Amino acid sequence: MKALIISADYFEDTELLFPYYRLKEEEIEVDIASLNKGKIKGKHGYEVEINKSIGEIKPAYYDILILPGGKAPELIRKEKEVHEIAKHFFEKNKPVAAICHGPQILISAGLLKQRRATCYRSVVQELKAAGAIYEDKEVVVDGNLITSRQPSDLPAFLKEIMNALKRSKS
Amino acid sequence: MKALIISADYFEDTELLFPYYRLKEEEIEVDIASLNKGKIKGKHGYEVEINKSIGEIKPAYYDILILPGGKAPELIRKEKEVHEIAKHFFEKNKPVAAICHGPQILISAGLLKQRRATCYRSVVQELKAAGAIYEDKEVVVDGNLITSRQPSDLPAFLKEIMNALKRSKS
Repeated sequence: MKALIISADYFEDTELLFPYYRLKEEEIEVDIASLNKGKIKGKHGYEVEINKSIGEIKPAYYDILILPGGKAPELIRKEKEVHEIAKHFFEKNKPVAAICHGPQILISAGLLKQRRATCYRSVVQELKAAGAIYEDKEVVVDGNLITSRQPSDLPAFLKEIMNALKRSKS
Repeated sequence: MKALIISADYFEDTELLFPYYRLKEEEIEVDIASLNKGKIKGKHGYEVEINKSIGEIKPAYYDILILPGGKAPELIRKEKEVHEIAKHFFEKNKPVAAICHGPQILISAGLLKQRRATCYRSVVQELKAAGAIYEDKEVVVDGNLITSRQPSDLPAFLKEIMNALKRSKS
């Protein structure tokens, strides 16, 4: 099992770190990718090491894609390579989990039409405009797609991520 | 199952929030106690709601005690009521999990004599002086006592917390 987190500077710290630590607790390998290698810094000052640039990512290698929120998605949502990575996961029906502003990446990649999803409250209008069916719930699961609204939803978000990984295994 | 976290201002944010979210993922009830009700603020600015003051805590009600680090333990390590709570868990052989500066509370309560344990590097000397057998490992489990050194140890720390809770259940 191998997980991919894509983020950038100004990530919402707990939305990146909690999934990262949680997957490592399960001894799942996790790569954190961003525009460049080096470090990225969260809104609350936590730094994480980027071991792969987005350009180096081979999406076939990963079982799940996780998109944390914060201001990071705004910085990478226009990147064609990010869209191609996200599309791969949808085409192969592999889990994609996005929280808070994370779904902005999937909006820009044109992947949310007719999909049930949630997001941070300031993103709701553009989520609907992208053709998604918005639900105001701590976590929404629609096939391979897992979405949550905010840090306080992390327990429910991770529970569904773990359920999805168990289903992938079997 | 019911968990108790004791902390104060200047807690290490992830060391409180990751266990908190992780236990909630398992649908375990969690109380966070501090000197007073209201809010406490972490070193990185995260705020958490305190729903019980330390004086209100009935330790018999809880299955596990968790002591996050940061500067918070320094603020509460001299409190007699905190010592009494910690002693209850040791007497009843219920899990006590302390990370980073968290073991300072157990040092002050006189509970680490001849116990294998770890802690943040700046705490090592006083841990040894308190009679503990220090080990430089991501997590040390000695009977009911689970200790870790720092935030990057959280995956191993939570894995052992979950193992201890599974043992308590059976």
